[in-house]
Amino acid sequence: MTEENKTAALLIIGNEILSGRTQDTNTPWLASALNETGVTLQEVRIVPDIEDAIAKAVNDLRAINDYVLTTGGIGPTHDDITSVSIAKAFGKEIVLNEGAYQSLLDYYGDEAEITTPRKKMAMMPEGAILIPNPVSGAAGFQIENVFVMAGVPRIMQAMFDHVKNLLTPGKPMLSHTLTCILQESEVAEPLQRLQTKYPDVVLGSYPQYRSGVLGLSLVIRATDKDLLTQVTSELIDLIESLGARANTLSIPANE
Amino acid sequence: MTEENKTAALLIIGNEILSGRTQDTNTPWLASALNETGVTLQEVRIVPDIEDAIAKAVNDLRAINDYVLTTGGIGPTHDDITSVSIAKAFGKEIVLNEGAYQSLLDYYGDEAEITTPRKKMAMMPEGAILIPNPVSGAAGFQIENVFVMAGVPRIMQAMFDHVKNLLTPGKPMLSHTLTCILQESEVAEPLQRLQTKYPDVVLGSYPQYRSGVLGLSLVIRATDKDLLTQVTSELIDLIESLGARANTLSIPANE
Repeated sequence: MTEENKTAALLIIGNEILSGRTQDTNTPWLASALNETGVTLQEVRIVPDIEDAIAKAVNDLRAINDYVLTTGGIGPTHDDITSVSIAKAFGKEIVLNEGAYQSLLDYYGDEAEITTPRKKMAMMPEGAILIPNPVSGAAGFQIENVFVMAGVPRIMQAMFDHVKNLLTPGKPMLSHTLTCILQESEVAEPLQRLQTKYPDVVLGSYPQYRSGVLGLSLVIRATDKDLLTQVTSELIDLIESLGARANTLSIPANE
Repeated sequence: MTEENKTAALLIIGNEILSGRTQDTNTPWLASALNETGVTLQEVRIVPDIEDAIAKAVNDLRAINDYVLTTGGIGPTHDDITSVSIAKAFGKEIVLNEGAYQSLLDYYGDEAEITTPRKKMAMMPEGAILIPNPVSGAAGFQIENVFVMAGVPRIMQAMFDHVKNLLTPGKPMLSHTLTCILQESEVAEPLQRLQTKYPDVVLGSYPQYRSGVLGLSLVIRATDKDLLTQVTSELIDLIESLGARANTLSIPANE
């Protein structure tokens, strides 16, 4: 039902996520933001700070998605190897990007401030197009369908504000969530029938503990608002017919 | 430095993560738990509830990792397609697993309670070995080097308690984190020298905003405790030599 939407993959780069040290908050933020833009997030990969791992993931993902967005690894330290890895993925030289250098100069105000580590942040694959960094001067970049952004959430979000205008917008997936105290196995068959009746919605069933009670979240997703309302109403009836109460968790446009 | 450790990949299955609706808490939990077991987490992939996407990711990941752990999609509803997808990945038939059926029977107490949707939870690829579910009766399973677990965190964690004994233990990566108010570009060169001096540690540099101030977390990771202590001490000296104060964020064995 979102065949016309463009697809995207996220590539989250960083040992700190894989070690469990840092909770990756960029994925849920970008998942919501892409959905609002009407771009369908197809896959997320988290890879370590290893050149070949990054290059291979970029090449795999850009071949099968309209867009690839990366976060992390574009700072000045030795563990920031995203630009080099992406140059490798594209078989391009890594060169000093004049625009990126100028952006650093604008931010730091004086050429003497552009130390070797800072200059590294202006080294990009040949032909890279800048993604402005309004927060701290060190730009991200686009090369073909790959968008390279910072890992610091505040900076990444500012960069995405620019990137989203470069993506072809589609239809956002709208969703409603109903919660109830039912077992999944009780709703499984009527839910399957509802799914079959409405192929243009996506029905999801997610058991979860709330205050120690195993309840159920049922999620209705569709790009068409009227259809969403119709199926939500039928699902409420379904839940009530099973003797339970349907609670509306929240009905934002995108959740 | 952890060449002897076995490697693992996580495959997180579920539209709810990709839509941004649900925050994936299984990844950070399993990342820490695997590290405690001395298994190196190499990659995480998040894929939607699409049979081919799951099968392809399983096959890609099991070819290049010692272990693959999956979470999600093993319930009774129409969107639970992990078992079928994994059978497809291995080119196996999906059959009623006697042990899994018995586990449901033990849990529900009566054959009449094993409705068609519940019975679906005992359908597994031929030759699957059970992973017990002490919480809600519906087992996970192992097939070759792939471990299939529930998505509900409480159930997944109980399953991993069993799975971890099936993994070859290695050396946990120990880590210390120091925070300071310095710019990354100031520490970049001496940090690079420290990394070169100690190839058996992994030094990471992560800028982050705390109360609106851009500070820096420097992470030292090593499997050898004495080496970790030594490099941490040198890094404290390094930070102080740059005129800043090194704060110890926390020094647990694994963080």
